[in-house]
Formats: sequence, C-alpha cells, structure tokens
Amino acid sequence: MSADPPTRRYRIDVAYDGTAYAGWQIQPNGITVQAVLEETLARLSGGDRPKVHGSGRTDQGVHARRQVAHTDLRGGMAPAALVRAVNALLPADIRVVKAAFVDPAFHARRDAAAKEYRYFIWNGPVVPPFVRRYRTHIRTPLDVEAMRRAAARLRGRHDFAAFTANPNRKVESTVRSLTALEVRRHGREVTIVARGEGFLYKMVRSLAGWLIRVGEGAVPASQTGEVLASRRRTARVPTAPPEGLFLWQVEY
Amino acid sequence: MSADPPTRRYRIDVAYDGTAYAGWQIQPNGITVQAVLEETLARLSGGDRPKVHGSGRTDQGVHARRQVAHTDLRGGMAPAALVRAVNALLPADIRVVKAAFVDPAFHARRDAAAKEYRYFIWNGPVVPPFVRRYRTHIRTPLDVEAMRRAAARLRGRHDFAAFTANPNRKVESTVRSLTALEVRRHGREVTIVARGEGFLYKMVRSLAGWLIRVGEGAVPASQTGEVLASRRRTARVPTAPPEGLFLWQVEY
Repeated sequence: MSADPPTRRYRIDVAYDGTAYAGWQIQPNGITVQAVLEETLARLSGGDRPKVHGSGRTDQGVHARRQVAHTDLRGGMAPAALVRAVNALLPADIRVVKAAFVDPAFHARRDAAAKEYRYFIWNGPVVPPFVRRYRTHIRTPLDVEAMRRAAARLRGRHDFAAFTANPNRKVESTVRSLTALEVRRHGREVTIVARGEGFLYKMVRSLAGWLIRVGEGAVPASQTGEVLASRRRTARVPTAPPEGLFLWQVEY
Repeated sequence: MSADPPTRRYRIDVAYDGTAYAGWQIQPNGITVQAVLEETLARLSGGDRPKVHGSGRTDQGVHARRQVAHTDLRGGMAPAALVRAVNALLPADIRVVKAAFVDPAFHARRDAAAKEYRYFIWNGPVVPPFVRRYRTHIRTPLDVEAMRRAAARLRGRHDFAAFTANPNRKVESTVRSLTALEVRRHGREVTIVARGEGFLYKMVRSLAGWLIRVGEGAVPASQTGEVLASRRRTARVPTAPPEGLFLWQVEY
C-alpha cells in the first residue's frame, strides 16, 4: 500500500481580464476566476480538485494585474513547470504570472499586509478600441485638482461606512486606513491609486464614484468631509463601473 | 420638386481591433471593418449606403491604430457630430477617432504619401491578459542586435519579391522603398517599426517573420542579403501572425 504523496503549498500570482467572469470568488451563478483555476489545477493533477485561496475577492467585471493566491498540490511539481503547464490549459484571459513554494503556514488572505487598487478613466471623446475593456469612459473634462482636494480629505484612518455598498452587513467595523489615495493624469488617462491594509465591499469603486462626481463638477470637493462624517451610504456616492478597476498588487 | 442635397467629402480616421474581422476590405465571407462602417453610415443617413474608401486594406486579424478613409455623405453633418453619432452606433472595437471635411479631390488611397506599420512582440514567458489580442508571443529571448543587423540590410529601395505572400499575382513591380525598419526593445516588448511609401501584400508580416527567425537564432542575420537578392518567396521567410500587426499611421 502506498501513501498519498505529500502536498506542498504554492503561492500563485494571477493576472486576469475580468470582463467574462462573475468575479473572483466561486458562486452558484456564473463562471469565476477561482473556479477556472481550480478546475485547471484538477486537470493537471488528475486528482481531487484543489482549493485556491485568494487574497480577497474581486467583483464581476473587475480585473487583476496581480492577484495573489495559495493552493496545496500533491506531487511537488516545480513552480516554473507549474506556471507553464497551467497557462497551457487556462483561457488566455487568465494567466498565472508566477508560482513559488511557500511555507505551509502562508495564507494569501490572512497574511496580506496591504493592497493597491488602480481605477482607470479614459477622459476624452473616444476610447481607443484596444483599452475598451479596461477603462471607464468619462467624456466631461475632469477637474483633477478638485479630485485631489477630495482625495486628501479621504486619506487616512476613517469610518468609511458612506463608501461601502452594503453598510448593513455584519462587519466588525467599517473603519479602514487609506494609506494612499492619489489622482494622476497622463493626457487623457486619469488614474486613481488607492492603497490600504484592507478595503470594505465596493469601497474603491465608491471612492472612485465620488471622485468622478467631484471631477465632473457635479459636487464640490469641500462636501467630502461631510459625506465621510455622515457614515451613511446614500445616492450621493455612486458606485463607479467595474471595467476601470484593477487589483494592482498585494503586499506581504 | 426638391433636388438631392449635395454630398460633402469627409476624411475619417478610424481605429480598430481587428480580432473579430475578416480584415478591412469588403469580401463575400466574413464581416469586415469597411462593411461595418458603410452599414453604420447608411443607418445614420437613412439613405443609400455610402462607399468608404480606405488608404489600403488590412488582413484578417490585423489592427489599425489609425486607418484613414474618405467617404461622400449628403446632408453636411458637422464632422464632430458625425464622430459622436457614428461611434454611438458602431461596435466598441471600431472607433472613428476624427472626421474632417476635405476637398472633393482628396483620395485616401491615391493621396497616401507614406504608411507606418508596427509589429508588436511579447518576448517573455507569459503574455499579460490585457494585451493578448495585440501581441505575438515569442518565448525565446530575441537577439535584438541581430534583428537590427538584418533590418539594416532590408532598409532602402529593393525588390521585395522574397517578402510578399503572393509574388505571382500581377503587380507592376515588387520594388518598394522601406524608408524605416527599426527594432526596438522596452523590457519584454519588442517592436518592429516599418515605414515606406507603399507595401506589398503581407510584406510587413513577412519582414517580421524573417526578423523573428533571425532574433531566435534560427538563421543568421548575414543571410538577409541573399534572401532579398533571391527575389523568390520560400519557406525560409514565414508570415508572422496577424495579431501583432498595427497599421500605425498614414501620411498625406
């Protein structure tokens, strides 16, 4: 009788175009990135379907430049061979960009120290076809200085209940630390960079939604503090569309 | 009785993701960019389907950052309004980036003074999902210096019969002037820039196919002159895949 070969824990860094997926996390309706990765790893191993644990979920239509996950696999395949074999089986809109053996105690979600998201806006009359899936289109010329004044008011440690989609869900706290919230412009590209230890549900898209309204001149930047202090989500803060959002990097 | 309103000639600059199209030019099988533009303009005008004349065709799967065309339309719609209305009806993988009234003598093909094509190669182990439709994937590290030596031998005025897909078709001459043929590297991106007054059928992809073989070390750069002088297309010169190719600009 032979014992099962031992499992090894791998960290896998994953890039994906979220356009075709119902988000990262497995759910009953719609294909998810996590499900495709698990099915692909199962095809490779020929055995049980391994569970892939991400650093956190991304919503339907949101992209990842570099999501981080861990998974336990039998057989000890070398990480470089795993990358090549998995990518040969995955659809082209999901790529494993790197794999590495990690300590069995490594946990992609619990050990994440910080995350960076970037929200990309095409701020001109015509979106180039080549980035159409990866930019939110805003025709109105954005006042980036006003967006920066609003962002300055949002940076730091606050109760972000006004900037999450579902403040009624049971979470211990809606207080989070935004260590960075920057607004950059390069020609017609306006990019919002958000960095923090952790984010609430739809928080980045809510921050982007508010900053876009400020940039369009629909609301003054000076109202930002009042909205934040209200700790109530209202229609004043729209959720910006998913196609502009990228999970940019996860730090450990 | 009212006379038909007079037509005005427009120059329209068009960007497209060629992935879903059977090329630029109307043909019996498959949807083409020209056909989609003509159908869209017909929907706008509500009248006869106008003919759209491009600067030249692009093959199935080839992209255009900036194709130039002309068309004659009745009604005199202002160019900025035309851009907005046409883009509202076009699929997102085709965009009119600019329109302008031009002299009725302007002809997008006959008046083109020079064209620039760019061929994009992703030269690394994993193609990021966001550019997967716009890069040819070459895993082998390319020797860009060798590619540049080969390119130097191809620049200038030559008979390019060895670098066209169908040298037997009736063309007056297979002599063309390549005013530029550059190989650039930025990290994992290797880009071939080709500029000339005119190009033969599949000439840029044939030049790219040869330069890639040289870069991979499959053939020495020093054989380039011999291939050129042979004036015969053989299997030594492969046609590089369409997804890496962009019609970059047309000069008038």
